[in-house]
Amino acid sequence: MTQYDSLMAHARQTEALAQVAGRLGWDQETVMPRGAAAQRAEEMAAMEQVLHARRCAPELGDWLAAIAPDNAVQAAQIRHIRRSYDRATKVPADLAAAIARVTSLAQGDWAAARAADDVAAFAPRLAEVVALKREEAAALAAGGDLYDALLNDFEPGATAAGLETMFDALRPRLVALRDKVLGVAHPADLKGSFPEEAQLAMAQELAEVFGYDLTRGRIDKAVHPFSSGSGADVRITTRTDPKDPFNCFYSTIHEVGHATYEQQVDPAYALTPIGAGASMGVHESQSRIYENQLARSPAFAKWLFARMKVKFGAFGIENADDFARALNRVGPGFVRTEADEIQYNLHVMLRFDLERALIAGDLAVGDLEEAWNARFFKDFGVEVPKPSLGVLQDVHWSVGLFGYFPTYTLGNVYAGCLFKRLQEDLPDLQADLAVGDTTAALQWLRTHLQVHGALRDGADTIAHATGEAPSEAPLLDYLEAKFGALYGL
Amino acid sequence: MTQYDSLMAHARQTEALAQVAGRLGWDQETVMPRGAAAQRAEEMAAMEQVLHARRCAPELGDWLAAIAPDNAVQAAQIRHIRRSYDRATKVPADLAAAIARVTSLAQGDWAAARAADDVAAFAPRLAEVVALKREEAAALAAGGDLYDALLNDFEPGATAAGLETMFDALRPRLVALRDKVLGVAHPADLKGSFPEEAQLAMAQELAEVFGYDLTRGRIDKAVHPFSSGSGADVRITTRTDPKDPFNCFYSTIHEVGHATYEQQVDPAYALTPIGAGASMGVHESQSRIYENQLARSPAFAKWLFARMKVKFGAFGIENADDFARALNRVGPGFVRTEADEIQYNLHVMLRFDLERALIAGDLAVGDLEEAWNARFFKDFGVEVPKPSLGVLQDVHWSVGLFGYFPTYTLGNVYAGCLFKRLQEDLPDLQADLAVGDTTAALQWLRTHLQVHGALRDGADTIAHATGEAPSEAPLLDYLEAKFGALYGL
Repeated sequence: MTQYDSLMAHARQTEALAQVAGRLGWDQETVMPRGAAAQRAEEMAAMEQVLHARRCAPELGDWLAAIAPDNAVQAAQIRHIRRSYDRATKVPADLAAAIARVTSLAQGDWAAARAADDVAAFAPRLAEVVALKREEAAALAAGGDLYDALLNDFEPGATAAGLETMFDALRPRLVALRDKVLGVAHPADLKGSFPEEAQLAMAQELAEVFGYDLTRGRIDKAVHPFSSGSGADVRITTRTDPKDPFNCFYSTIHEVGHATYEQQVDPAYALTPIGAGASMGVHESQSRIYENQLARSPAFAKWLFARMKVKFGAFGIENADDFARALNRVGPGFVRTEADEIQYNLHVMLRFDLERALIAGDLAVGDLEEAWNARFFKDFGVEVPKPSLGVLQDVHWSVGLFGYFPTYTLGNVYAGCLFKRLQEDLPDLQADLAVGDTTAALQWLRTHLQVHGALRDGADTIAHATGEAPSEAPLLDYLEAKFGALYGL
Repeated sequence: MTQYDSLMAHARQTEALAQVAGRLGWDQETVMPRGAAAQRAEEMAAMEQVLHARRCAPELGDWLAAIAPDNAVQAAQIRHIRRSYDRATKVPADLAAAIARVTSLAQGDWAAARAADDVAAFAPRLAEVVALKREEAAALAAGGDLYDALLNDFEPGATAAGLETMFDALRPRLVALRDKVLGVAHPADLKGSFPEEAQLAMAQELAEVFGYDLTRGRIDKAVHPFSSGSGADVRITTRTDPKDPFNCFYSTIHEVGHATYEQQVDPAYALTPIGAGASMGVHESQSRIYENQLARSPAFAKWLFARMKVKFGAFGIENADDFARALNRVGPGFVRTEADEIQYNLHVMLRFDLERALIAGDLAVGDLEEAWNARFFKDFGVEVPKPSLGVLQDVHWSVGLFGYFPTYTLGNVYAGCLFKRLQEDLPDLQADLAVGDTTAALQWLRTHLQVHGALRDGADTIAHATGEAPSEAPLLDYLEAKFGALYGL
């Protein structure tokens, strides 16, 4: 065995164990008995300690110092392992285990508090999470910016300052477009009956239309839809709302975007550091391009309108144009995951600013709800009626995901870049989508991006796929064109 | 921290990781996507290597050499840790990982071969498993008996020679009783409709009647019913047969016996070596006493007969006496898990002899089917019609469980001992069971046995609960009395 082979054998085992730990998370949110929460926290902490010990194993340091990569794949593997090693050696094992234990408990507490609309019941636990994550950020930042240190876990190379510049460029055109669209009439709400079983059957059909391989995955229900796992076992969850089947369908398509990305990575990279998505921003670009640029297009709306009439009978919408507008309704919603493509990014910017303040120590958890509600009124012009539609709506902070939210908007920006190029390359795209044929679009995404996994970092992955460095302009151009046409602006 | 505290902190983490590995097994048999088998094998092997390394960690050897226990609990914890350490230091890590990997693959191969009734498709993989287990047995036995070394994993202190003596004492009275019962008329088969959903609802009701805490457990479907996990997360599986609801109900009660045992262990022992069942034999004594002595009693049959009429309408049985006989039908079945209380032990003896021959090297996997069928004809007087009703019916060998089968009959013997004493202590037992009231019986089992977990080894656990050393006589007396009364012998 060469030293590189030894390094990769070690990495392969670590990735296998990381898959196991990830599946514990899936289990917790889908099938775990509720009385098992405390024991599960011990189990997660034990797994985290094992993973942490492997990620900062002394032999890794020796190998990393000694090995010179022979090619781009080896260089990429080593880059990821070095990043993980550097991170692990900076964070004490006890702190990593404490974060695993507390976030495991906090997830259950968050779900209970959200169900009871009781922020105060969750605040002490969230304060624990924030304190531990600040401690972790300080260990990682080594004197630099705390928030950037956490952001780097999800989008290596990104900085809060850079994102702020991007968000500042996005905001005025998004707000102007939102205000214009809000000024014109929208179609009526859906009426009719959408039984859960029929929704789940339609969701499964949509998952297949969008390329999800169910022999290497499965669909379950959970409070918050998510995708989990890599390679041969990539599971998604969805949820249903008896009055709003789009919630189920588009959550599903979104998670299918994440999951097929993982499923389509070159099998030669399986259970290695590059055998997964390149970054959270790139991951989100896949989920968003599936969900929005493809599945919310007026063309695909034609196909879905017909399928839904067959599945659910009449539901109060008379033609495919109104159906497309119903899929792209812009209104005063409170929930990020249900937001339209325009306002979604404003929801993200709110969270980005609040979590930066939490991590900087400028905002106390005790003041978070008030800050959320004030900011929401400022950005959206309406009062948050209850915490489950406000500060308690997302699972992220409870599980310690600070620095994750901005990657959602970064993903939208990346999706804009990819879609611009994809449309140029596939002149028949709209005609294909109108008959529910996604194959050319999915094939383009596979060969240009998905198959490469994490061979390149986020921005480089997009640049490789599109031939140019990513920027926010294509997303804004796409949104203005799409909503302009839909609403006759 | 004292050295004992350090030892227990280490053991606690190991137990938490063992729970995670066990849950991977649950996942594999209930919810895993079928395309994930190869990756899962890698994951299981990685977990096995982690556990193996922890179980033979050098610091364990130092602690075990240095610590003198202060009390019986400490002595029991140390006894279990020493046993695990001795085992782990004898089996090379590569061999342990190979067994984990191959048995993970073999489980899927077995399920496919069983579905296709194709022994040849499975034989090469089973031969791999047998070869690896023989290698493991040789490492463990250090010159002693190979089979005893494997048996010791499930029933510390038991020997094949001792079991053979016990089986020899059981066999003539079992065969004589079986032949007598076969000579008299049995009630007609169940008729009627037993929809899967109603069966599963009844199974859940039975699980609750027998004390299963569903806030710390769950019931799913699987090919082979099993119980998995300890403490706060103990899951069971069941299966349904549209024509035979008893299959589902009594599989469920059986697994509930295993699962409530784990749930009822003193919480102070949670995630420690004694926080689980004492041995496989004692575990089986719980599942069998729940299933047979309690749930197949003529008294409990009265309650269940009434409940089933409410749930399923008429099903061709007119009175509770016939219903009790239907629950205790003795006939020429091929499947161990569906066998009556008398012949069950003959099914076990067949497997015991065959697996001893496999491990001794006296029987080749290529000759196993023929040996099975010949022995089955000798013991049961009928030809095995297809492998899924013969050599392929059980999952055990595919997952490397050699030495496990005899603990089923040992469990029956232990259940006989426990039931003798339980009946003496609870004069109202039959009246209670006739109205579906299990509380006094379950409470007796909890306080006399279950709460103590693995504080004592198998035979000592039974002796502590009953006040006398276990023997086969109470089981034989119970069977002769019960079947004598049921069938007027």
